[in-house]
This record gives sequence, C-alpha cells and structure tokens, in this order.
Amino acid sequence: MSSANGLICFTNCLLPQEDGGLVEKDLWIDERRGVILDSQKTFFVRKERPDRVIDLGGNILSPGFLDIQINGAYNFDFSVYEGDDETYRTGLHRVAEKIVETGVTSLLPTIITQERSLYPKLLHLLRPYSSPTSATLLGWHAEGPFIQFAKRGAHEPQFLLPAKEDIKSFEEVYGADNLAVTEDWLMGDHHVGVRVITAAPEVDGVMASIDELVRRGVVFSIGHSIATTGLATAAVQNGARLITHLFNAMPQLHHRDPSIIGLLGASPHLSSASSPTSPVSAAFPKILRVPSSVRRLAAESGPQATSEAFDDVQTPPLTPILPHAELDDLHLQKGKVTDLAFERPFYELIVDGIHSHPNSVRLAYSSFPEGCILITDAMKILDPHLKDGVHEWRDGKRFVKSGDKLYLEGTDTLAGSVVTLDKCVRNFSRFTGCSLGEAIRCATYNPAKCLGIENRKGTLRPGADADLVVLDRKGKVLSTWVRGREVWSKS
Amino acid sequence: MSSANGLICFTNCLLPQEDGGLVEKDLWIDERRGVILDSQKTFFVRKERPDRVIDLGGNILSPGFLDIQINGAYNFDFSVYEGDDETYRTGLHRVAEKIVETGVTSLLPTIITQERSLYPKLLHLLRPYSSPTSATLLGWHAEGPFIQFAKRGAHEPQFLLPAKEDIKSFEEVYGADNLAVTEDWLMGDHHVGVRVITAAPEVDGVMASIDELVRRGVVFSIGHSIATTGLATAAVQNGARLITHLFNAMPQLHHRDPSIIGLLGASPHLSSASSPTSPVSAAFPKILRVPSSVRRLAAESGPQATSEAFDDVQTPPLTPILPHAELDDLHLQKGKVTDLAFERPFYELIVDGIHSHPNSVRLAYSSFPEGCILITDAMKILDPHLKDGVHEWRDGKRFVKSGDKLYLEGTDTLAGSVVTLDKCVRNFSRFTGCSLGEAIRCATYNPAKCLGIENRKGTLRPGADADLVVLDRKGKVLSTWVRGREVWSKS
Repeated sequence: MSSANGLICFTNCLLPQEDGGLVEKDLWIDERRGVILDSQKTFFVRKERPDRVIDLGGNILSPGFLDIQINGAYNFDFSVYEGDDETYRTGLHRVAEKIVETGVTSLLPTIITQERSLYPKLLHLLRPYSSPTSATLLGWHAEGPFIQFAKRGAHEPQFLLPAKEDIKSFEEVYGADNLAVTEDWLMGDHHVGVRVITAAPEVDGVMASIDELVRRGVVFSIGHSIATTGLATAAVQNGARLITHLFNAMPQLHHRDPSIIGLLGASPHLSSASSPTSPVSAAFPKILRVPSSVRRLAAESGPQATSEAFDDVQTPPLTPILPHAELDDLHLQKGKVTDLAFERPFYELIVDGIHSHPNSVRLAYSSFPEGCILITDAMKILDPHLKDGVHEWRDGKRFVKSGDKLYLEGTDTLAGSVVTLDKCVRNFSRFTGCSLGEAIRCATYNPAKCLGIENRKGTLRPGADADLVVLDRKGKVLSTWVRGREVWSKS
Repeated sequence: MSSANGLICFTNCLLPQEDGGLVEKDLWIDERRGVILDSQKTFFVRKERPDRVIDLGGNILSPGFLDIQINGAYNFDFSVYEGDDETYRTGLHRVAEKIVETGVTSLLPTIITQERSLYPKLLHLLRPYSSPTSATLLGWHAEGPFIQFAKRGAHEPQFLLPAKEDIKSFEEVYGADNLAVTEDWLMGDHHVGVRVITAAPEVDGVMASIDELVRRGVVFSIGHSIATTGLATAAVQNGARLITHLFNAMPQLHHRDPSIIGLLGASPHLSSASSPTSPVSAAFPKILRVPSSVRRLAAESGPQATSEAFDDVQTPPLTPILPHAELDDLHLQKGKVTDLAFERPFYELIVDGIHSHPNSVRLAYSSFPEGCILITDAMKILDPHLKDGVHEWRDGKRFVKSGDKLYLEGTDTLAGSVVTLDKCVRNFSRFTGCSLGEAIRCATYNPAKCLGIENRKGTLRPGADADLVVLDRKGKVLSTWVRGREVWSKS
C-alpha cells in the first residue's frame, strides 16, 4: 500500500461528531504520519489528491474507542505479576494487539488493590506504550488501595490503606516518578504512568490529596466510597473529575442524601462557592470552606471502618436544605447560568445489562449526557471468542462466566465484566434510545475529554491520531485502524 | 370595571410558553366570559379594541397554578369530617378563596386513607366546585386505602385495604357514582368526583383494576408502593399515568431494580410490547403479557405484608437483562423513536428543600422534564402567614412546623409539607438551574396535561379559562385572576 503522498480519503461514510451527530462526509488521513487531516485544507487549498480512496459503503467511520477501565483480557490480568518482566510485557502486548478487534484503540489498564510491594514491580511495566499494530496503552488506572472497606467489592481487604501522609502516601504506594508533574503526557513523555486514581474521599488523607494529584495531571475519580453528598461535592470542588463505575460500589441514591450518584444532578449554580446563600454550602459549610490542603478534614474514619460505623454520616438530614435566598434575573430566561464554579464529574458506566438495569442507565445518561463514559471493567477472561464456564482468577479464587455475567464462584459478587466495548456501545443505544452516534461519543470523545487528550485521541480533529474503527449501521466492528494503518478486519 | 365589550389586553409582560420559554407578548381576555382570546383574531381580524389595557410593567403573566396534591390549608383538613356538612363546606370554600394568594387557581383536594365509612360522607362534598372569586376544585385525589403497608407513611395502618374484587372494591370504597365514565368532566358535569387515585400496583386487585379506572377517566398514580421494576412497568402499560410524590414512600433507586423511580429512565423503545426482543419483557414476561383484567396477577401479598415479606421481590436480578437483539436503523440518527408503546408517567415532586435534596430533584427533572409536576402535598397548617410551632392534627396527633419542615411530633416522619406552590416554583428554578419559565410549566401546563384539561386550565390557549397569576421577575405573586377577574392582589 505504498503511495506517493500517503494520503487516504475515506468516502461514502458517516462520521460521528462530537455532539453525537452522524454526518455524511469524507475523511482524509495521512497514512505515513498516522494523523487525520483537515479535508478542506488538503483538498481545496493544497489541491492534493489522495493515493487511495476507500469507499466505506455507507458505514460509519468512528474514532477508535477508548477504554479507561479494564482489568485484563485475553487471559492476561494487568494486576498479576508472575515474577517475570518479559512474561508480563508479553501478556500486556497481547492484549494491546488483540483488543483492536473490539474497536478499542486506546486503553488504560487498571491495577486493582495490590499487596504494597507489588506496585513497584508493576508500575515500570505499565508506562504508556504503543506499537504500529496495537492499541495504545495510555498509562494506568490505579483503583485502590485508598478505598472504602465497606465498598471494597472484589478488592482484598487486607491491602486497603489510608493516606495518612496525604500526597506522600500516594507517592509511597505508586512511586513518586509515576506522579511527576507533566505538561502534556501523551506527547512523547513516556515516563509518567498513573493517569487515573480511583479513591474514596472519606478515607483518611484522600480528600487533602486531591488538588495536588490534579495539579500533577492525574484524573481523580471517586469510587469504592460511601461519601455523603457533602463529601462527594467537596471532592469535586477540590478537583475530582470522574466517578468510577457509577452505581457499583457506592451508596444507592437516597433522595435526601443522594451521595455520589447525586453529583449527576448537582447544579453549577447552587454549588457555587462564591454564593453565600447556596443551599449546598449552607448545608455543608465546613466541608466546602475547608482548605483542601488540610489533611484528614472530612475523613471520619479510616478504611477499616465498616458501613455500620458510618450510619450517622449516612443519615439523611431532616433539616431544611434551603435558605431564603431569592432568584436573580439569571434564571429568568431559558438556558443555563454561564459562570460555573462547579463542573459535574464524568461518570463511568458498565453497560453489559448486568451491572445496571437499562432504566438506571437511561436515568443517569439523560440527566447528564455530556459526562457519560462507557467502560468494560473487563477481567482477563474477556475474549469475544471464549466459551462460558468457570475460570481461574488468582490466589486460588475462581470466576464464573455466564454470557456477559461474571461473578466470584460461590457468591453473588459481581467482579468486573466480560463484555466488549463495542457491545457496550450497541447496548447503550438500545437501553437509552439514543442514536448510535450519541453512544459512540460515550466511548470516544467523552473519555478523551475526561483525560484531556481530545486533540489526539477520541475525535476526528485534524492532527489527531488516525485511530479509527469502521462500524456497520448496527454498530458492529468491520475494521480497525491504528495511526493510519488497518490493523484488523472482519473479512 | 364594566365595559362595552369586556375585553382586557395585558401588555408589557412575559408569557410562559408550553415549552418552558418566556415570550414578550400581549394577552387578550374576555372578562365577561372569563376566557382567554386569540389575540390575532381579536385584534387583527375582528379589529376589536380592548376596554382596558393593563400594563404589567415587564412582569410575568402566567396561567394560574394547579396543585394536584394538597391535604389541606388555612386550618382546614380535607380528610377530616366533623359530622357537619356545612362546616366542611365552609372550610373547603375558605381554602379555595384563600389559596389564590399563592398563585393557585385550581386544586385537587387529597383524601388520605380513611376509616371506610367516612368516604361516603366526604365524597359528595368534594365534587368539582368553583366560585367567581375562588380557585376551582377539580374533584379529588384519593390517596389510599389501596396502598402498601410497608410504605404507608402517615396513613393509618388499620384502614388500609386490598381490592379483593378489583374495580368493585374501588367502587365500594369511593362510591360507584364517583367513578362513573365521563367524556369531559370539566365541562359542566359536576357529578363525578375522583380524578386521581394513588394506589400500590402490588396490592391485591389493584393492578387488575387500572385499565378500568383509566377507561373511566381516572388518572391512576403509583404511590405508597414497593413495586419492582417489572410491576411498575406493567402498571404503566396498563394505564398508570402518574407517580405520587416521587422519592417519598417508595423504594430508593437500586441500580439493578430501579423500581418506580426508574420509570423516569424507561425507554419507550425497550418497553415496547410489540418487541419480542425487549429486555424488559424478557426479564418480566409474565407481568407484561398478563391481561390486565385478570385479578391478583402480580400481587404477591396483601397490603398488610411487611417490607420483609417482599425481600425476594426486591432482590436485584443477577441474571442478564439483555437479550441478543440487534439495533435497527431507527437508532442510527439522532432523535427518538416515534412509535411509542410506552409513555413514561408524569411524576410529582415536593420541592420544599426537605422532602428531597436539590441534587435528587435535578436528577429527576433533567432525566424527564416533560413529566415533572410540582405539588405542595400541604397539610392544613399551610398558611403563608402562620408561625412555627406545634399544631393539632387529628386523632390526638400533633405536627411540628419548623420553617417549611413538617413532621409528626416525637418522630422523624415527614408528614406532608407547609410550603406554598409559588415557593416551590422558585425553589425549583434555583435547585435545577432551569429558567423560571420552565419551572412555571411544572405547575401549570404539565399538571393540566396529566389531567387532560390543558385546553381549559394551565395554559394560555385561546378558549382556556382566564385563570391567571401575575409574577414578578423573581417568581413572587403580585396578583391572581380567576375567570377574567382579579381576585387577589399584593398591593
């Protein structure tokens, strides 16, 4: 496929837009540089002609999918180190090579709570990585150990930790190198690893570490937590930008203390720190006004507390939330207040039809479509070609796979999933009634924006990597492209 | 104020639109007929001139508010009959006369669960009623006795009933006359009383009665219930059109069995009875396919069961909800599927800052704005002029009023509210960040549409009753008009 100028023009296709639309349009890429081109400039201004024109037969040409929470796949578990770097690297690269068949071209491997000494062994192996034929590893997602005991799910309770020395505790566990400040971590600097941290704001020292983590370029995600509405709100005001697998491992939505899930309904206007009459700040004045660098401010207890110990925290307030502030003219006309002091966090959804009921998925999505991010949270037995049955995990534990359902043998505990991201996209469109273009946005633009890399990944912007996936009109993957080269094809 | 042609033109005002907008426009009414006119026809075609032009100084001219759930006000309790028709009528009319100061021009008095013999005494007193100077009583809202014991709230447990003989049980309790079929009950037929019934679909005989109640023009509302997602969905498919005080007296949103609250996220497409591959019908095939006239179909227990008895019903399903159906081209393009087999129900919200956290309110609203109905659920001590303190209820029980909070003395049980509807509108705009016009819609057009009377009440359509409320730009009531006449003014 060598060519004079290396230009490819995809034609007769629908391009997903960043607003969820699907538009019939050509897309030009530069095969040699592996980037998307500005069609207008290339064709009309520079008068260039493509070496290849690829007719997609009316199918969809989407940015490649991003999976920002995945525990493993193709029989490899990102959280298991078998004492041999080469074996680990081989497994890692196998996942990156194979996952492209599911439309995923970028992923953030998740490390769940580990015995502390394992982190150094894993972390230097999980640096950002890409090859010409594989999905890009964007760094890693550290889920634990700073999480809530009462919402630990499948995490090993004995390895959970408080962050007694704030950011230092994070550095000690993950390694200071992995939390170094970086301007643009996707642009060639491959030394920094931790990109997302899932932690519970109520765990000792976590709240006080958020703003420093954010300053260093980490996406702080609230998860495995029993944070009250006040704590969850404070975490977002300190910089939390994401909610880990919404609905799972957190309190249910209580109407008088809607907690983490309720953040999807948080009003920018009400949460404005500058408004002395804000209902939220009136209800939780201490939490909102505390300097975020003061440690242990809102952590009533360490991670070893049981959910019972938090009963007083979870009791719904019976006092009026509402002060006697008045409306101002900002509310008069249709449309939103523009000077936002509070941005609702992105939220991850596992749309396998098991982790959440379709009605819950639609309720969350319709309340905040711009924040929705589809993830697989997949385990190592993710493999579209694998049969149902019992599978080994680690430490002698075993999983049962039954269709898209995955649970610890002998229990009802859901433990990640085995659904592929392309199937999540299709499920999501069916569950919510949204268009396929809107569902695609939740696996491309939204996660890229959450990570701040939408100029490089998850979009069709000129200059972005030509990581692409061709989908039929039902959302099935026909072929996948990485940096301008086809790396997988159905046929 | 007599005039040659009785025409009034309101000018220099903002008119709330049915889509939530606020538009600067004149409004013409016919003072003598008490109806709203078509300005275009009146002015441009018929070339008429108004006898009066009223300059509203840039304020808002809204349809009068409708309160479809209110237990009492101004020291009168709709559910208390003191043995004397005249005393009752006097109290009733006092409420109708006074409530206009809160912008309410139509209301549906609520009768909560009664000792059975009291219904006949109350029902003939609560027929639709209007006077030239008062709000219109639209009939009544029967809340109980066919409700769930485990979610009875302040209802007397010993008076709860199953509907063992389906529709006959309803007739026996409320009176057959009050459930007679009627074509257009607002148009002069003042013999029929019950307009909304709140009942629990899981109570014996209730599910099987819904379609017949609906056929007779009753709005069936799901409330005081622990219905699972399947039961709640089936109730809507049988004709339920409303959810009584969303969040209160129902299960919290569980992500794997989102129950009644989850109906706000129900997809018309998924719930389509015509779709054999629908996840909902796959998960609850028996319930969806059962003829609604078969009694006791889904009632696992009578109303005396405790919540423990329903544990197996409430256990979240761990089985996949998702069949292997495929997307069709309907989903490809932005926009909704049009042939709806399932319409999400309207839902009532008490926006007093106490019954639900602002985040919960916003979450519900943003997921389904068109269904939102603001109610007060107010108790007899509703009176904007009344001080805080302890107040008598009935049967020796007492309430505590503290600001907008109202609870049973010595308990934490919320018992209705004392918030006024105009304040709910202002709260709602602040809580959700929606415009005042959008908040007004939830107290005017939406409740009118739920009752099917939007041509007469809750809108500014030509021919509708000239029930109007003038609001300042902050949503405070300046004056109220009933059928073309000013009945209350702040000045």
